[in-house]
Amino acid sequence: MKNYFIVVEGLDGSGKTTAINTITKILNNNGIKDIILTREPGGTPIAEKLRKLIKYNIKGDEITNKTELLMLYAARVQLIEKVIKPALEKGKWVIGDRHDLSSQAYQSGGRNINQKLITYLSNMVIGKFKPTLTLYLDLPPKIGLKRILSRRKIDRIEKEQLSFFVRTRARYLEIASTDSSIITIDANQNLKQVQHEIYKILNQWLKIYK
Amino acid sequence: MKNYFIVVEGLDGSGKTTAINTITKILNNNGIKDIILTREPGGTPIAEKLRKLIKYNIKGDEITNKTELLMLYAARVQLIEKVIKPALEKGKWVIGDRHDLSSQAYQSGGRNINQKLITYLSNMVIGKFKPTLTLYLDLPPKIGLKRILSRRKIDRIEKEQLSFFVRTRARYLEIASTDSSIITIDANQNLKQVQHEIYKILNQWLKIYK
Repeated sequence: MKNYFIVVEGLDGSGKTTAINTITKILNNNGIKDIILTREPGGTPIAEKLRKLIKYNIKGDEITNKTELLMLYAARVQLIEKVIKPALEKGKWVIGDRHDLSSQAYQSGGRNINQKLITYLSNMVIGKFKPTLTLYLDLPPKIGLKRILSRRKIDRIEKEQLSFFVRTRARYLEIASTDSSIITIDANQNLKQVQHEIYKILNQWLKIYK
Repeated sequence: MKNYFIVVEGLDGSGKTTAINTITKILNNNGIKDIILTREPGGTPIAEKLRKLIKYNIKGDEITNKTELLMLYAARVQLIEKVIKPALEKGKWVIGDRHDLSSQAYQSGGRNINQKLITYLSNMVIGKFKPTLTLYLDLPPKIGLKRILSRRKIDRIEKEQLSFFVRTRARYLEIASTDSSIITIDANQNLKQVQHEIYKILNQWLKIYK
Protein backbone atom coordinates (compact mmCIF):
# COMPACT_ATOMS: atom_id res chain seq x y z
CA MET A 1 0.00 0.00 0.00
CA LYS A 2 1.26 3.48 -0.84
CA ASN A 3 1.53 6.10 1.87
CA TYR A 4 0.89 9.81 1.59
CA PHE A 5 1.07 13.29 3.10
CA ILE A 6 -2.38 14.91 3.39
CA VAL A 7 -2.70 18.54 4.52
CA VAL A 8 -5.68 20.45 5.88
CA GLU A 9 -5.62 24.20 5.28
CA GLY A 10 -7.87 27.16 6.03
CA LEU A 11 -8.38 30.19 8.23
CA ASP A 12 -8.63 29.62 11.98
CA GLY A 13 -12.19 28.67 12.81
CA SER A 14 -12.67 26.87 9.49
CA GLY A 15 -12.89 23.49 11.21
CA LYS A 16 -9.42 22.06 10.55
CA THR A 17 -9.30 19.99 13.76
CA THR A 18 -12.65 18.31 13.05
CA ALA A 19 -11.58 17.70 9.45
CA ILE A 20 -8.36 16.03 10.63
CA ASN A 21 -10.36 13.75 12.96
CA THR A 22 -12.68 12.89 10.09
CA ILE A 23 -9.77 12.11 7.75
CA THR A 24 -8.14 9.92 10.41
CA LYS A 25 -11.38 7.95 10.79
CA ILE A 26 -11.75 7.48 7.03
CA LEU A 27 -8.14 6.29 6.74
CA ASN A 28 -8.66 3.90 9.67
CA ASN A 29 -11.80 2.54 8.02
CA ASN A 30 -9.68 1.85 4.96
CA GLY A 31 -7.20 -0.18 7.00
CA ILE A 32 -4.66 2.65 7.33
CA LYS A 33 -3.69 2.78 11.01
CA ASP A 34 -0.11 4.06 10.98
CA ILE A 35 -0.77 7.79 10.88
CA ILE A 36 1.30 10.72 12.17
CA LEU A 37 -0.38 14.07 12.86
CA THR A 38 1.67 17.27 12.51
CA ARG A 39 0.87 20.93 12.96
CA GLU A 40 2.56 24.07 11.63
CA PRO A 41 4.26 26.05 12.76
CA GLY A 42 5.43 23.38 15.20
CA GLY A 43 5.69 19.64 15.43
CA THR A 44 9.25 19.30 16.73
CA PRO A 45 10.67 20.69 20.01
CA ILE A 46 12.52 23.48 18.15
CA ALA A 47 9.58 24.22 15.83
CA GLU A 48 7.21 24.41 18.82
CA LYS A 49 9.49 27.03 20.42
CA LEU A 50 9.39 28.98 17.17
CA ARG A 51 5.58 28.63 17.17
CA LYS A 52 5.41 30.36 20.55
CA LEU A 53 7.68 33.19 19.34
CA ILE A 54 5.50 33.62 16.26
CA LYS A 55 2.12 33.48 18.00
CA TYR A 56 2.76 35.66 21.04
CA ASN A 57 4.33 39.10 20.95
CA ILE A 58 7.15 39.97 23.30
CA LYS A 59 6.37 43.46 24.60
CA GLY A 60 8.53 46.12 22.94
CA ASP A 61 9.90 43.73 20.32
CA GLU A 62 7.15 43.32 17.73
CA ILE A 63 8.11 40.74 15.13
CA THR A 64 8.81 42.18 11.69
CA ASN A 65 7.09 40.51 8.71
CA LYS A 66 10.40 39.18 7.43
CA THR A 67 11.40 37.79 10.85
CA GLU A 68 8.05 36.00 10.98
CA LEU A 69 8.48 34.60 7.46
CA LEU A 70 11.99 33.30 8.19
CA MET A 71 10.92 31.72 11.49
CA LEU A 72 7.98 30.00 9.74
CA TYR A 73 10.33 28.47 7.17
CA ALA A 74 12.90 27.56 9.84
CA ALA A 75 10.15 25.65 11.69
CA ARG A 76 8.94 24.05 8.44
CA VAL A 77 12.32 22.75 7.28
CA GLN A 78 12.95 21.30 10.75
CA LEU A 79 9.55 19.52 10.71
CA ILE A 80 10.00 18.18 7.17
CA GLU A 81 13.49 16.83 7.78
CA LYS A 82 12.96 15.50 11.30
CA VAL A 83 9.36 14.28 11.24
CA ILE A 84 7.49 14.23 7.92
CA LYS A 85 10.10 12.70 5.59
CA PRO A 86 11.27 10.06 8.12
CA ALA A 87 7.62 9.07 8.79
CA LEU A 88 6.84 8.71 5.06
CA GLU A 89 10.03 6.71 4.58
CA LYS A 90 8.88 4.31 7.30
CA GLY A 91 5.61 3.75 5.45
CA LYS A 92 3.44 5.92 7.71
CA TRP A 93 0.79 8.35 6.51
CA VAL A 94 1.10 11.98 7.61
CA ILE A 95 -1.80 14.39 8.14
CA GLY A 96 -0.68 18.00 8.48
CA ASP A 97 -2.57 20.82 10.18
CA ARG A 98 -1.28 23.53 7.79
CA HIS A 99 1.83 23.40 5.59
CA ASP A 100 3.49 25.56 2.94
CA LEU A 101 0.22 26.83 1.48
CA SER A 102 -0.40 28.72 4.74
CA SER A 103 2.74 30.81 4.16
CA GLN A 104 1.68 31.51 0.60
CA ALA A 105 -1.77 32.65 1.78
CA TYR A 106 -0.93 34.50 5.02
CA GLN A 107 2.50 35.94 4.18
CA SER A 108 1.94 36.81 0.54
CA GLY A 109 -1.81 37.48 0.75
CA GLY A 110 -2.24 38.74 4.31
CA ARG A 111 1.10 40.45 4.86
CA ASN A 112 1.68 41.56 1.26
CA ILE A 113 5.21 40.11 1.20
CA ASN A 114 6.53 39.75 -2.37
CA GLN A 115 5.35 36.38 -3.74
CA LYS A 116 8.67 35.85 -5.57
CA LEU A 117 10.53 35.99 -2.30
CA ILE A 118 8.24 33.43 -0.68
CA THR A 119 8.46 31.17 -3.72
CA TYR A 120 12.25 31.35 -3.56
CA LEU A 121 12.31 30.52 0.15
CA SER A 122 9.84 27.71 -0.37
CA ASN A 123 11.89 26.19 -3.20
CA MET A 124 15.06 26.48 -1.19
CA VAL A 125 13.62 24.93 1.95
CA ILE A 126 11.21 22.38 0.55
CA GLY A 127 12.50 21.72 -2.95
CA LYS A 128 10.10 19.45 -4.82
CA PHE A 129 8.56 17.93 -1.70
CA LYS A 130 4.85 18.70 -1.52
CA PRO A 131 1.66 17.24 -0.02
CA THR A 132 -0.08 14.57 -2.06
CA LEU A 133 -3.46 16.09 -1.30
CA THR A 134 -4.54 19.35 0.36
CA LEU A 135 -8.07 19.97 1.59
CA TYR A 136 -8.68 23.71 1.84
CA LEU A 137 -11.62 24.60 4.08
CA ASP A 138 -12.99 27.83 2.67
CA LEU A 139 -14.86 30.19 4.97
CA PRO A 140 -15.66 33.93 5.07
CA PRO A 141 -13.21 35.39 7.64
CA LYS A 142 -15.97 37.02 9.72
CA ILE A 143 -17.54 33.65 10.43
CA GLY A 144 -14.20 32.04 11.29
CA LEU A 145 -13.35 34.81 13.77
CA LYS A 146 -16.79 34.53 15.39
CA ARG A 147 -16.26 30.79 15.87
CA ILE A 148 -12.82 31.29 17.49
CA LEU A 149 -13.98 34.09 19.78
CA SER A 150 -16.75 31.86 21.12
CA ARG A 151 -14.23 29.32 22.44
CA ARG A 152 -10.88 30.92 23.38
CA LYS A 153 -8.58 33.95 23.54
CA ILE A 154 -7.10 35.00 20.21
CA ASP A 155 -3.33 35.15 19.52
CA ARG A 156 -1.15 37.80 17.85
CA ILE A 157 -2.00 36.77 14.29
CA GLU A 158 -5.71 36.36 14.96
CA LYS A 159 -5.74 39.96 16.26
CA GLU A 160 -5.10 41.23 12.71
CA GLN A 161 -7.73 43.36 11.03
CA LEU A 162 -10.47 41.71 9.00
CA SER A 163 -8.90 42.97 5.74
CA PHE A 164 -5.81 40.84 6.53
CA PHE A 165 -7.94 37.69 6.54
CA VAL A 166 -9.89 38.79 3.48
CA ARG A 167 -6.57 39.05 1.58
CA THR A 168 -5.43 35.70 3.02
CA ARG A 169 -8.62 33.95 1.92
CA ALA A 170 -8.42 35.49 -1.56
CA ARG A 171 -4.88 34.12 -1.95
CA TYR A 172 -5.97 30.67 -0.73
CA LEU A 173 -8.73 30.61 -3.36
CA GLU A 174 -6.42 31.92 -6.07
CA ILE A 175 -3.77 29.24 -5.49
CA ALA A 176 -6.37 26.47 -5.04
CA SER A 177 -7.83 27.36 -8.44
CA THR A 178 -4.51 26.68 -10.18
CA ASP A 179 -3.21 23.61 -8.27
CA SER A 180 -4.99 20.32 -8.92
CA SER A 181 -3.66 18.78 -5.68
CA ILE A 182 -5.71 21.28 -3.63
CA ILE A 183 -9.44 20.61 -3.20
CA THR A 184 -11.60 23.45 -1.87
CA ILE A 185 -14.37 22.52 0.55
CA ASP A 186 -17.13 24.95 1.50
CA ALA A 187 -16.72 25.19 5.28
CA ASN A 188 -19.65 27.57 5.62
CA GLN A 189 -22.08 24.67 6.10
CA ASN A 190 -23.06 22.76 9.19
CA LEU A 191 -20.58 20.25 10.60
CA LYS A 192 -22.37 17.16 9.23
CA GLN A 193 -22.42 18.55 5.71
CA VAL A 194 -18.70 19.35 5.82
CA GLN A 195 -17.87 15.90 7.19
CA HIS A 196 -20.02 14.31 4.50
CA GLU A 197 -18.16 16.21 1.81
CA ILE A 198 -14.78 15.14 3.22
CA TYR A 199 -15.99 11.52 3.30
CA LYS A 200 -17.06 11.73 -0.31
CA ILE A 201 -13.88 13.38 -1.58
CA LEU A 202 -11.44 11.28 0.41
CA ASN A 203 -13.10 7.97 -0.40
CA GLN A 204 -13.04 8.77 -4.10
CA TRP A 205 -9.43 9.86 -3.80
CA LEU A 206 -8.45 6.68 -1.96
CA LYS A 207 -10.01 4.55 -4.70
CA ILE A 208 -7.73 6.21 -7.23
CA TYR A 209 -4.51 6.64 -5.29
CA LYS A 210 -4.27 3.92 -2.66
CA MET B 1 29.49 64.56 13.13
CA LYS B 2 28.65 61.46 11.09
CA ASN B 3 27.71 58.23 12.81
CA TYR B 4 28.54 54.70 11.77
CA PHE B 5 28.08 50.96 12.20
CA ILE B 6 31.35 49.19 13.05
CA VAL B 7 31.47 45.38 13.24
CA VAL B 8 34.01 43.07 14.84
CA GLU B 9 34.26 39.61 13.30
CA GLY B 10 36.32 36.47 13.85
CA LEU B 11 36.29 32.95 15.24
CA ASP B 12 35.46 32.53 18.91
CA GLY B 13 38.59 33.08 20.93
CA SER B 14 39.93 35.67 18.49
CA GLY B 15 39.50 38.48 21.02
CA LYS B 16 36.31 40.15 19.79
CA THR B 17 35.20 41.32 23.26
CA THR B 18 38.54 42.98 24.01
CA ALA B 19 38.52 44.56 20.55
CA ILE B 20 35.04 45.98 21.13
CA ASN B 21 36.20 47.50 24.45
CA THR B 22 39.22 48.99 22.69
CA ILE B 23 37.07 50.46 19.91
CA THR B 24 34.65 51.95 22.46
CA LYS B 25 37.56 53.64 24.27
CA ILE B 26 38.98 55.04 21.01
CA LEU B 27 35.57 56.41 20.02
CA ASN B 28 35.14 57.93 23.51
CA ASN B 29 38.58 59.55 23.23
CA ASN B 30 37.37 61.09 19.98
CA GLY B 31 34.35 62.60 21.66
CA ILE B 32 31.93 59.90 20.53
CA LYS B 33 29.95 58.85 23.60
CA ASP B 34 26.58 57.77 22.21
CA ILE B 35 27.38 54.15 21.35
CA ILE B 36 25.15 51.08 21.18
CA LEU B 37 26.69 47.60 21.43
CA THR B 38 24.95 44.70 19.68
CA ARG B 39 25.72 41.01 19.37
CA GLU B 40 24.61 38.40 16.84
CA PRO B 41 22.73 36.26 16.88
CA GLY B 42 20.82 38.24 19.49
CA GLY B 43 20.36 41.81 20.61
CA THR B 44 16.55 41.93 20.88
CA PRO B 45 14.33 39.78 23.14
CA ILE B 46 13.18 37.64 20.17
CA ALA B 47 16.67 37.43 18.68
CA GLU B 48 18.11 36.37 22.05
CA LYS B 49 15.57 33.52 22.20
CA LEU B 50 16.66 32.48 18.71
CA ARG B 51 20.30 32.67 19.89
CA LYS B 52 19.57 30.11 22.60
CA LEU B 53 17.85 27.79 20.12
CA ILE B 54 20.84 28.09 17.78
CA LYS B 55 23.57 27.64 20.38
CA TYR B 56 22.20 24.77 22.44
CA ASN B 57 20.84 21.54 21.01
CA ILE B 58 17.51 20.20 22.15
CA LYS B 59 18.03 16.46 22.65
CA GLY B 60 16.53 14.41 19.83
CA ASP B 61 15.87 17.46 17.63
CA GLU B 62 19.22 18.42 16.15
CA ILE B 63 18.94 21.62 14.14
CA THR B 64 19.31 21.14 10.39
CA ASN B 65 21.74 23.46 8.57
CA LYS B 66 18.86 25.22 6.80
CA THR B 67 16.89 25.69 10.01
CA GLU B 68 19.99 27.26 11.57
CA LEU B 69 20.53 29.55 8.56
CA LEU B 70 16.91 30.75 8.58
CA MET B 71 16.93 31.37 12.34
CA LEU B 72 20.17 33.36 12.01
CA TYR B 73 18.60 35.60 9.37
CA ALA B 74 15.34 35.88 11.34
CA ALA B 75 17.38 37.14 14.31
CA ARG B 76 19.40 39.47 12.07
CA VAL B 77 16.44 41.17 10.40
CA GLN B 78 14.81 41.69 13.79
CA LEU B 79 18.00 43.28 15.18
CA ILE B 80 18.54 45.52 12.15
CA GLU B 81 14.96 46.80 12.05
CA LYS B 82 14.40 47.15 15.80
CA VAL B 83 17.84 48.22 17.09
CA ILE B 84 20.58 49.04 14.57
CA LYS B 85 18.69 51.22 12.10
CA PRO B 86 16.75 53.16 14.77
CA ALA B 87 20.01 53.80 16.67
CA LEU B 88 21.80 55.07 13.58
CA GLU B 89 18.80 57.26 12.74
CA LYS B 90 19.04 58.82 16.20
CA GLY B 91 22.68 59.71 15.56
CA LYS B 92 24.20 56.95 17.70
CA TRP B 93 27.17 54.81 16.73
CA VAL B 94 26.69 51.05 16.71
CA ILE B 95 29.41 48.48 17.40
CA GLY B 96 28.39 44.95 16.45
CA ASP B 97 29.82 41.72 17.83
CA ARG B 98 29.36 39.77 14.54
CA HIS B 99 27.02 40.60 11.66
CA ASP B 100 26.25 39.25 8.19
CA LEU B 101 29.85 38.29 7.43
CA SER B 102 29.59 35.58 10.12
CA SER B 103 26.83 33.83 8.16
CA GLN B 104 28.89 34.06 4.98
CA ALA B 105 31.91 32.52 6.75
CA TYR B 106 30.25 29.93 9.02
CA GLN B 107 27.27 28.88 6.89
CA SER B 108 28.87 28.98 3.46
CA GLY B 109 32.43 28.13 4.55
CA GLY B 110 31.90 25.96 7.62
CA ARG B 111 28.59 24.30 6.74
CA ASN B 112 29.10 24.18 2.96
CA ILE B 113 25.68 25.75 2.27
CA ASN B 114 25.41 27.06 -1.29
CA GLN B 115 26.79 30.63 -1.34
CA LYS B 116 24.13 31.76 -3.84
CA LEU B 117 21.42 30.84 -1.40
CA ILE B 118 23.04 32.79 1.43
CA THR B 119 23.62 35.78 -0.85
CA TYR B 120 19.94 35.72 -1.83
CA LEU B 121 18.79 35.54 1.79
CA SER B 122 21.20 38.29 2.75
CA ASN B 123 20.00 40.58 -0.05
CA MET B 124 16.40 39.90 0.82
CA VAL B 125 16.82 40.52 4.53
CA ILE B 126 19.42 43.25 4.59
CA GLY B 127 19.19 44.85 1.17
CA LYS B 128 21.92 47.44 0.73
CA PHE B 129 22.44 48.03 4.44
CA LYS B 130 25.98 47.09 5.47
CA PRO B 131 28.55 47.99 8.13
CA THR B 132 30.70 51.03 7.45
CA LEU B 133 33.77 49.22 8.72
CA THR B 134 34.45 45.63 9.71
CA LEU B 135 37.51 44.56 11.69
CA TYR B 136 38.16 40.87 11.12
CA LEU B 137 40.38 39.30 13.79
CA ASP B 138 42.22 36.51 12.05
CA LEU B 139 43.46 33.56 14.08
CA PRO B 140 44.33 29.88 13.43
CA PRO B 141 41.31 27.91 14.72
CA LYS B 142 43.41 25.69 17.00
CA ILE B 143 44.59 28.70 18.98
CA GLY B 144 41.08 30.15 19.24
CA LEU B 145 39.67 26.88 20.57
CA LYS B 146 42.48 26.58 23.13
CA ARG B 147 41.71 30.10 24.38
CA ILE B 148 37.96 29.33 24.75
CA LEU B 149 38.53 25.99 26.47
CA SER B 150 40.73 27.68 29.07
CA ARG B 151 37.86 29.90 30.23
CA ARG B 152 34.44 28.24 29.71
CA LYS B 153 32.30 25.35 28.42
CA ILE B 154 31.87 25.25 24.66
CA ASP B 155 28.47 25.44 22.90
CA ARG B 156 26.95 23.38 20.04
CA ILE B 157 28.73 25.28 17.28
CA GLU B 158 32.08 25.37 19.05
CA LYS B 159 31.88 21.56 19.32
CA GLU B 160 32.33 21.28 15.54
CA GLN B 161 35.42 19.55 14.19
CA LEU B 162 38.56 21.57 13.54
CA SER B 163 38.02 21.25 9.76
CA PHE B 164 34.76 23.23 10.15
CA PHE B 165 36.66 26.19 11.59
CA VAL B 166 39.46 25.85 9.04
CA ARG B 167 36.84 26.23 6.27
CA THR B 168 35.19 29.12 8.14
CA ARG B 169 38.48 30.97 8.51
CA ALA B 170 39.35 30.41 4.82
CA ARG B 171 36.01 31.96 3.82
CA TYR B 172 36.58 34.93 6.17
CA LEU B 173 39.96 35.56 4.54
CA GLU B 174 38.59 35.10 1.03
CA ILE B 175 35.78 37.64 1.52
CA ALA B 176 38.03 40.08 3.40
CA SER B 177 40.44 40.06 0.45
CA THR B 178 37.73 41.31 -1.92
CA ASP B 179 35.82 43.81 0.26
CA SER B 180 37.57 47.08 1.03
CA SER B 181 35.31 47.77 4.04
CA ILE B 182 36.79 44.75 5.86
CA ILE B 183 40.19 45.14 7.51
CA THR B 184 42.00 41.99 8.60
CA ILE B 185 43.93 42.13 11.87
CA ASP B 186 46.39 39.44 12.90
CA ALA B 187 44.92 38.22 16.19
CA ASN B 188 47.74 35.74 16.73
CA GLN B 189 49.81 38.31 18.62
CA ASN B 190 49.80 39.30 22.25
CA LEU B 191 46.93 41.45 23.50
CA LYS B 192 48.90 44.71 23.56
CA GLN B 193 50.02 44.30 19.97
CA VAL B 194 46.45 43.63 18.79
CA GLN B 195 45.14 46.64 20.73
CA HIS B 196 47.90 48.80 19.28
CA GLU B 197 46.96 47.74 15.77
CA ILE B 198 43.28 48.52 16.37
CA TYR B 199 44.28 51.96 17.74
CA LYS B 200 46.35 52.67 14.65
CA ILE B 201 43.73 51.52 12.15
CA LEU B 202 40.74 53.11 13.84
CA ASN B 203 42.42 56.47 14.45
CA GLN B 204 43.46 56.66 10.80
CA TRP B 205 39.96 55.67 9.73
CA LEU B 206 38.36 58.29 11.99
CA LYS B 207 40.56 61.00 10.47
CA ILE B 208 39.17 60.15 7.06
CA TYR B 209 35.54 59.36 7.81
CA LYS B 210 34.45 61.30 10.87
